[in-house]
Amino acid sequence: MQYPEPIARLIASYMNLPGIGQKTATRLAFYTIEMKDEVVSEFAKSLLSAKRDLRYCHICGNLTEEDPCEICQDPTRDKSTILVVEESKDVMSLEKVREYRGLYHVLHGVLSPMEGTGPEDINLGSLISRLHNEEVKEVIIATNATTEGEATAMYLSRLIKPAGIKVTRLAHGLSVGSDIEYADEVTLLKAVEGRREL
Amino acid sequence: MQYPEPIARLIASYMNLPGIGQKTATRLAFYTIEMKDEVVSEFAKSLLSAKRDLRYCHICGNLTEEDPCEICQDPTRDKSTILVVEESKDVMSLEKVREYRGLYHVLHGVLSPMEGTGPEDINLGSLISRLHNEEVKEVIIATNATTEGEATAMYLSRLIKPAGIKVTRLAHGLSVGSDIEYADEVTLLKAVEGRREL
Repeated sequence: MQYPEPIARLIASYMNLPGIGQKTATRLAFYTIEMKDEVVSEFAKSLLSAKRDLRYCHICGNLTEEDPCEICQDPTRDKSTILVVEESKDVMSLEKVREYRGLYHVLHGVLSPMEGTGPEDINLGSLISRLHNEEVKEVIIATNATTEGEATAMYLSRLIKPAGIKVTRLAHGLSVGSDIEYADEVTLLKAVEGRREL
Repeated sequence: MQYPEPIARLIASYMNLPGIGQKTATRLAFYTIEMKDEVVSEFAKSLLSAKRDLRYCHICGNLTEEDPCEICQDPTRDKSTILVVEESKDVMSLEKVREYRGLYHVLHGVLSPMEGTGPEDINLGSLISRLHNEEVKEVIIATNATTEGEATAMYLSRLIKPAGIKVTRLAHGLSVGSDIEYADEVTLLKAVEGRREL
């Protein structure tokens, strides 16, 4: 006997998610059957709604319900600064800090010669045209501190600086609350290089 | 800015699943948005179908599309043996072995005084009535080798034996392919106790 077909289909669906293999998918599927009807139908609705009701802002590329997005539409935002991130979720993380009041630009990826991702494969063209049209004074590059993130930051910097726009990069160093003992060498090096006078 | 509402709802839905916290749920939700339309709508459909199209067999308590289930309906099955398991997924695991040809009974739980689960809270009454009505010669108890599983096995054994039915328990011992070095003491003890002549 195989699993009854509805269970087998649900297991297959769960297995499409990242980091979820056969065993976990099976556990989740059996758990789902024990869940309340309302909870499961809300789950199904939220899956469909996430696909249907979300789009990318045509200005900044951020994930949004309305185009242009809330941030691009907000008149109180400082239009002289654009912070460049890899993914929409990075925007949400930075917004939680409630410190930055400028605009964003989401690349939806990074340059990666290994994976064949070139400048034309990420949301770069619209960033360049924003720099032409708007009164942008500073571009803050907040790609991740990975090899690809650093390479993308270098590429952007070389592309944008000649236009006379200030290009900055988020500070790298020790995490707040972390022990020096456990920090990796590259992070420690960055922390020493980026030291500040007290 | 919060997450756009469709994302926030999807994150909340993912967080209802066991072992999935805020971070994983967020990652899964953003991953879902990048998935193909068909895949997501199939996911939603399979969730609803798993809730709608599955029921428990009124005879053995196994999860099934049709009641009675495939196994209870199968005339080639040996009706003199009932194998008792905790959950429906245990039936599927045992069926994969293709060795056992008797019937099953799913308890949907175990006795657990700590959690207040008594004999009336698990699928026990229908097991007893099956023993009355049918030509059952042996009950194989395959509850898990946990404290609760063992206690449930003892309870069932005392309940069923007086009726003159043979009660057996699955063998406990070393896993096939495992090293004695890494086996825990209780398992080793069971392996010695249950030794067989070659």
